[in-house]
Parts: sequence; structure tokens; C-alpha cells
Amino acid sequence: MLQRKRLALGAVGSCVVAVLVAVPLATGGQGRDATDQIRSELKGGPAKNVIFFLGDGMGTQEITAARYYQYGAAGRMNVDRLPFTGFQTTWSLKPGTAPYLPDYDPDSASTGTMWATGQKTIDERISQGASAALETPGANLKTVLEAAQKRGKRTGNVSTAEITDATPAVLDSHVSQRGCQGPKDMTLCPTETKAAGGLGSIAEQTVDHKVDVVLGGGQGRFNAAGGPIAGGPDNGKTVEQSAARQGYTEVNTAADLDAITPKGLPVLGLFTAGNMTTEWTGPVATRGDGVAPHKCTTTNRPANEPSLSAMTKKAIQLLDAKSWKGKDNGFFLQVEGASIDKQDHAANACGQLGETVAFDDAIGVALDYQRSHPDTLIVVTADHSHTSQIVAEDSTGTGNPTGYSDNLITKDNQVQRITYGTAGGATPPDAPPSQQHTGAVVPIWGKGPGAAAILGTTDHTDLFKVLQGNAGYHW
Amino acid sequence: MLQRKRLALGAVGSCVVAVLVAVPLATGGQGRDATDQIRSELKGGPAKNVIFFLGDGMGTQEITAARYYQYGAAGRMNVDRLPFTGFQTTWSLKPGTAPYLPDYDPDSASTGTMWATGQKTIDERISQGASAALETPGANLKTVLEAAQKRGKRTGNVSTAEITDATPAVLDSHVSQRGCQGPKDMTLCPTETKAAGGLGSIAEQTVDHKVDVVLGGGQGRFNAAGGPIAGGPDNGKTVEQSAARQGYTEVNTAADLDAITPKGLPVLGLFTAGNMTTEWTGPVATRGDGVAPHKCTTTNRPANEPSLSAMTKKAIQLLDAKSWKGKDNGFFLQVEGASIDKQDHAANACGQLGETVAFDDAIGVALDYQRSHPDTLIVVTADHSHTSQIVAEDSTGTGNPTGYSDNLITKDNQVQRITYGTAGGATPPDAPPSQQHTGAVVPIWGKGPGAAAILGTTDHTDLFKVLQGNAGYHW
Repeated sequence: MLQRKRLALGAVGSCVVAVLVAVPLATGGQGRDATDQIRSELKGGPAKNVIFFLGDGMGTQEITAARYYQYGAAGRMNVDRLPFTGFQTTWSLKPGTAPYLPDYDPDSASTGTMWATGQKTIDERISQGASAALETPGANLKTVLEAAQKRGKRTGNVSTAEITDATPAVLDSHVSQRGCQGPKDMTLCPTETKAAGGLGSIAEQTVDHKVDVVLGGGQGRFNAAGGPIAGGPDNGKTVEQSAARQGYTEVNTAADLDAITPKGLPVLGLFTAGNMTTEWTGPVATRGDGVAPHKCTTTNRPANEPSLSAMTKKAIQLLDAKSWKGKDNGFFLQVEGASIDKQDHAANACGQLGETVAFDDAIGVALDYQRSHPDTLIVVTADHSHTSQIVAEDSTGTGNPTGYSDNLITKDNQVQRITYGTAGGATPPDAPPSQQHTGAVVPIWGKGPGAAAILGTTDHTDLFKVLQGNAGYHW
Repeated sequence: MLQRKRLALGAVGSCVVAVLVAVPLATGGQGRDATDQIRSELKGGPAKNVIFFLGDGMGTQEITAARYYQYGAAGRMNVDRLPFTGFQTTWSLKPGTAPYLPDYDPDSASTGTMWATGQKTIDERISQGASAALETPGANLKTVLEAAQKRGKRTGNVSTAEITDATPAVLDSHVSQRGCQGPKDMTLCPTETKAAGGLGSIAEQTVDHKVDVVLGGGQGRFNAAGGPIAGGPDNGKTVEQSAARQGYTEVNTAADLDAITPKGLPVLGLFTAGNMTTEWTGPVATRGDGVAPHKCTTTNRPANEPSLSAMTKKAIQLLDAKSWKGKDNGFFLQVEGASIDKQDHAANACGQLGETVAFDDAIGVALDYQRSHPDTLIVVTADHSHTSQIVAEDSTGTGNPTGYSDNLITKDNQVQRITYGTAGGATPPDAPPSQQHTGAVVPIWGKGPGAAAILGTTDHTDLFKVLQGNAGYHW
């Protein structure tokens, strides 16, 4: 049980704030056996609906830093309401010939292919198998979204990145290189254009796949800026025009998304030219002791862009059976918090933490839905770990982090120092270059029918079965 | 299901080795529902016996790096055989007055006090409550080992560190500063000597507590080098002499430990003057791209020092009911893999990984025991996260880690680059100073009666109830 206690007025830097922190009772825990509660959560599959949350780059350091900043040391997040927890390995393959050799530090394309198709592949590859070189396309692999469509389920794909970015792409596209996002980006994939008899760019495949709800950024791949489609029935048109021909309603603002009804399906929501705007902003980390302690600016997203929560809520509303005529086969929905990773690369702690909190808010929306729809499986995980680390706030002198640091004043009114140390120029002072992914197992959470499959240490490929609502991995 | 495949002969550096790697089947997982298997693992408390494994500093990066090095990408460890998994927050308190403010990056003394007593405290404190300053002793807090003794259970305390180091100390000692390990170390704790009416040093309290099985390093705190006891019935004697007076049998070699029988209890095994020798050795990490790819030397421990597995096996054998006359109330045993942390501080990847593998080997010993003693609860966790990170092996130029790196050739015959980046001198080249703990949630695993209590995200203080075999935390 948590006991609310009032903390003393604390002063950090120039900031004086009264804060509340929840402190666990001295005895720890509930003083009772959790077994019965867990037993009541244990439900076999299959699940009718599946909602999958992918926090890009959200390793244990990232989730903890967001928890401490936003909710305080003893605070809990929405994701903590999911009863089952575990770890997943995320290694990918190196280009070569079978049997392929492992790469311990994967990217979001290879990891996305793992959870979306159940197969390992090489980095930068989108739902295609491994091959000798990145330039040589691999075999197209069936995805969990395609399997859901085949079983008559509605499908949704939501991201705060360009919707053609690696994570959302693995569900509805098959292409040899993640960079082949729009018609004019196909120089990397010359044999995969429609003119060459291929499936076309990720943007083209997204609309061709008739995913019922597609929401995110990246309009610049779909409109004139993204170039004309080469080949196929929409030769010379933009992807937006192709989408219109195929029955899509396109919306470009939060208000228009809000107004859409099931009659407007399938819906293509593209709210920014590139990635969507981060919820929070703050300074980029600096060398050594880092930026002086500060709070984050939490009002960065313009009102015309929907939040990840708003997109999730609308997607569920549109995909839920009540919105549809005919047979109710349930739905599959993927929701990506994409810029946790992007802001971690950028060594921007506020950006990173704000996206993590926004991602957790969206998880809350799904949990609310699940309360009245217990036949829904919710799974939350990350695709790889990342750079950021929580270190001692008072490290000085030779104890200085060698990387870049920021110092954030948390809800407890205490300083949390976050360090980025996987990449850096040689001579300080300098701006941090893109930080690296890291290879640790990622956390995974689950609730609903079949969720127990994520207990223990499993592999990212095991999600392919789990996300079909009928999986089970053994340790 | 794992399918064994033969990998091609691979060449890394000057090393040419044929390796086997287990690659998950393309479909991922077992293709079945894990629910029934998990249900069969769900057992309520209380547990008769409790074996607690503490991997010091073993965060998600550390456990993954050891898994990949020793068992390959698709390999699994003994710890993966524990069905229940979760995360724990580990924040400690800052000196002050109640209500105390949180410290997000704790040490092993405060975290040890959390799991041993269920209460938060300040860093460096051993099973005493928080206070305004480190020099001001806090209230003595009842420990899980003391509770087990009170319930008539046998107790054991095993570590690869000095047995007076913070982690083992929290079970049987109460002292304001972790440095007060032996009689001559009491200048930090002048009011806590026996002469001053206190409980004395950690070494003194360890033997005064009549713990049945005490095994580890640190003889230098117990013999003449550790100084004479000041005050009490053993005034002027060494702690070894005090132990003999109180009925202890002391052993100092692996062979003597092997020969000990229940008649020799209580037993004090002190196998080195300081910390025990690490299982593996290798170079300290260097700046940038780091040490050229290599294997670890795995034969570092002298034969006269027992392995952690051997100590664990012997401890279980001595504590098990069969060894005792009279009432069988079960036992509580703590086993620490101490030098995972110490070698992480030292930026020594081989040292760190070898200790992690040895720790996992000891977990295997307990799992073997539990198979025929299902009334045994096994819990494994770490007390805080640490520095090391798995990064891309081919990072070059501006992508270089800013910290110190080592490149290890894994069982897959591939390079795993491990980076240490939380502390460093200003001007390369230089030797890495002590790396820092980090604040991420730690992984936790459990099997046996009451183990489901560790699911979800709980706090380190919740372990106090869990380790009494009757706990239950709710998320």
C-alpha cells in the first residue's frame, strides 16, 4: 500500500516547489499473498482484440527516468497496471548466407520485422528475410497485421513518427531498405518499384494494404513532395491521390480526426510533413556535469496535431465492433511511441521523457477500453534498449560522466541526472552526435487473454504468435 | 522451440572457431498457450525455505552481455528457468529529516537495507533507518534473517565479496556506515563499538548473530589484521577468536569447506583476506573503439577458493533439514554475486561477465535443489543497475563511444562491444576511474510458493515480505 506523505519544501536551483511523494509503507508491499490476484488475471487465448504498444528505444533506463520525473520516486505509471512482465532479447542478423550470424545491437527495422513476422532479419529491412547484402531484397514475410486481415479483423497502425518509418512500416510493407519510404525515395530499392514489378514504396504499400485506420506523421511521403508513383494503376499520381482512389478519407488536423466517423473508413490521418512534434522540449545535453537543473517545457505540441492518446482513443473507437456493420471479428491495433528513440538519439532528455509519458498516457486509454472489453490482449514493449542512463546527481571531478548530461527537476523536486554516453565527438565542448541503440533485453508487459506468454525471457520473434492472440512461449 | 543449427566457420581477429548457435524457429515461440504452464507454477505462500540471490549491479545490460558472451544470442541461462519476472525500483533516501527526499541512484548498503528490512534508508547505511547525517546512527531495523531465526529457521549468508561488505552485512548487522567492517575500522562509527555500548563492527555482529553458515571473503577483518575487539566479552580478542568462543568452526579452503559436516555448524568460511578472486580476467576497457577483440581468460580463481556454486551447494546441504536433529522449520539463505558490480566499476568486461556467469551457475544449484524441494522459494534480483552497455561493434569516427570499451568474442564467434561511459578522466588516453551505479529498475525473477508477488513493477522494500515467504505486492 502506498501512503501519501507531504514532503518538506525543497529548493533546487532557483525553483521552490511544494511536492507530494508517495512513500511505500515501512513493511513493504501489501503484506498478503498475490497468488490469487495473479490467478484471476491468468486467461488463456485467443484474444478477440489485440492492442500492441511499441515504445521505440524504451529500455529500463528510459521507463524509469520518465517515471521518476513525472510521477516521483514512488510513483506508478499506467504500464504498471499490466500484471504480467518479462524481458525480450532483440538481436538481429548480419547480412550473409544461412545460417546467419547474430548482430547484438539491432535497429527498429529488423526488430520490427521480428515482432511483426516472427522471423529474424538484417538491420534496415522491412518485413523481408535476410540476404547477402542490404541491396539484395529478401523474401517477403507474412505480417501479424496481414494475418489479422485474413481472419477478418479490422486493423489500425498509429505512430508519432512518419507513418512510413520503420516500426509502422513492418506491419503493412515489405521492402529491402527502410529508407524507401515514398515514391521519390526508391533509388535505394530500384527493383522494388511498381514499374519494376515490385510492391512500391512504404507509403504506397500502406494505402494498398487497406489498413482501416492509419494515423501519424509523414504527409511529405504521400503528397507532391513525396514524388509521383512510378508504375501500377496510380502511375504518375501522388500516394494521397492513390489513397483517395482506393476509398481512403484523409484527415490532416486533430479537429478533423475528431470529427471522423466509421463511415469515413478507411482513414488516412497525416498530421505533419515529417515526424510529429514532441510533447515536451528542453535543452540538448552538454558535456560533463551537464545542463543546470531545470524543468521541461510540456506544451510543445501544437493543438492542430493530435496527441498519441487522442489517436489511440480514436483508433479504438473506429475499430471497435460497435462502429461496424457485419461480422464482428475483433481488431488488431499497433501504437508506436516513436520519438522516445529519436530524442534519445538526440541526447534530449525532456523530449525523450515527454514522449515516454505520452506513450504511457496512450496505454491508459487502452486499459480503460479493456476494462469493459476483457477479451482484449494488451502488450507493451520496446524494440531495443538505448543510451540514456540515470546517474548520481552529485558526481564531480573525475567522477564526471564522459558523455553528455542533463539535470531534470522531478516531481519530488529533486535532481535526476540523465547521461548520454554511447557517442561523442573527440574534443569538448561539442554538440552530441546521434547516440546509439544498446543491446540489453527490453522490458515487456501484458494483460488479457494469452498475456502470460510474455513471462520470463523470450525473444522478440515470439511476439508474432503472441500478437495473434493465441501464442505461448515457454522458458 | 529452439532448433540447433550449425553456423559457418567464422573468423574474428586471429581466432577461427566452429560454433553452434540455437536459432528460434521462424514461427517464434512454441505456438501454444502458456497459460496452463504458468497456472501450474502459481503457488501461494508461505514457503518453507527461501533462497535469495543478489547479483550486485546486475541490470538488464549486464545479464544480457553475459548471456550473449557465454551462451550465444539465442542461449538461455539458469535464471531464465524461473517462471515469474518483473522489475523493481531501487531509489534510496537522502540524509535529512522525515519525510525524507529520494536519491534516484542508490548504493548497495541502502538497497540492501531495503530488501533486508522493508524500509528505505540513506546510502552507506547498514540496516539502520535514515537520519540527518551519515555520522548520526539511525534506528536499528529488524532484518529478514533475524525474522527467520526468530521463527526457528536456519540461516545462511554467502558472498564472493568480503562477508562484511554491504550486501551480506545488511542481514546480520546494524551500523551507521558500511565502512565499519572490522574492529579497527570503527573510527567512522565511534559510538557503535562495544566499548561505547554499541553492537560493534560488522564482523563482530556477524559472528554474534550465530548465522549457521557464513561463507565468503574478508578474513582480514576477522584475524589480527582486523584489529582487536574493543569492549564486550571478547575485549582484546580477534573476531576469529570470538567466533571460536561462540562455537564456530572456521574453514579457510575449498577442501576444508567440502569436508565440513553438520556437526561443524555454525561454520565461518573465510577464503581470502579481502574479496574473493574473480572467475575470469581480461583487460580493462580503453577509450573509443576499445580493446581489440578477444576471449576472456576463464581460469583465474585458485583451486583453494571455492566457487560461488560450490559455496551455494554446501550451504544448502548444511541448511537442509536432513542435516539437522530436532524440528525442521526450513531455512533462509542469501547468495551474493558481489563482483559483478565491482568489475563493472573497474570497467573490466571479462571480470564482470565471468562473475555473472558464476552467479547464474549458483542459481542452477538452487534450482536443482528446488526440483525435489518444491516448498522452496527462489528469488533472484539485483540491487541497482550499473554502467556497462552493449553497443554496435562497428561504431567508428564520431560514432565512437565517449567512454571506455572492450570487444569480446562471444560463443557465436561474433564481437560484442561493451562500453563504460558514466565516469572518466578529462584527457584521453587515461585509465577509467570507478564507474557509477545507474538508476534504472532492476530485473527480478522468482519461482516457488509466493513467487508471483514479484510480477509487475514493485519496489526493493517489497522484498522484505516476499523473502519471508508470505508476501504479496499488488501493482
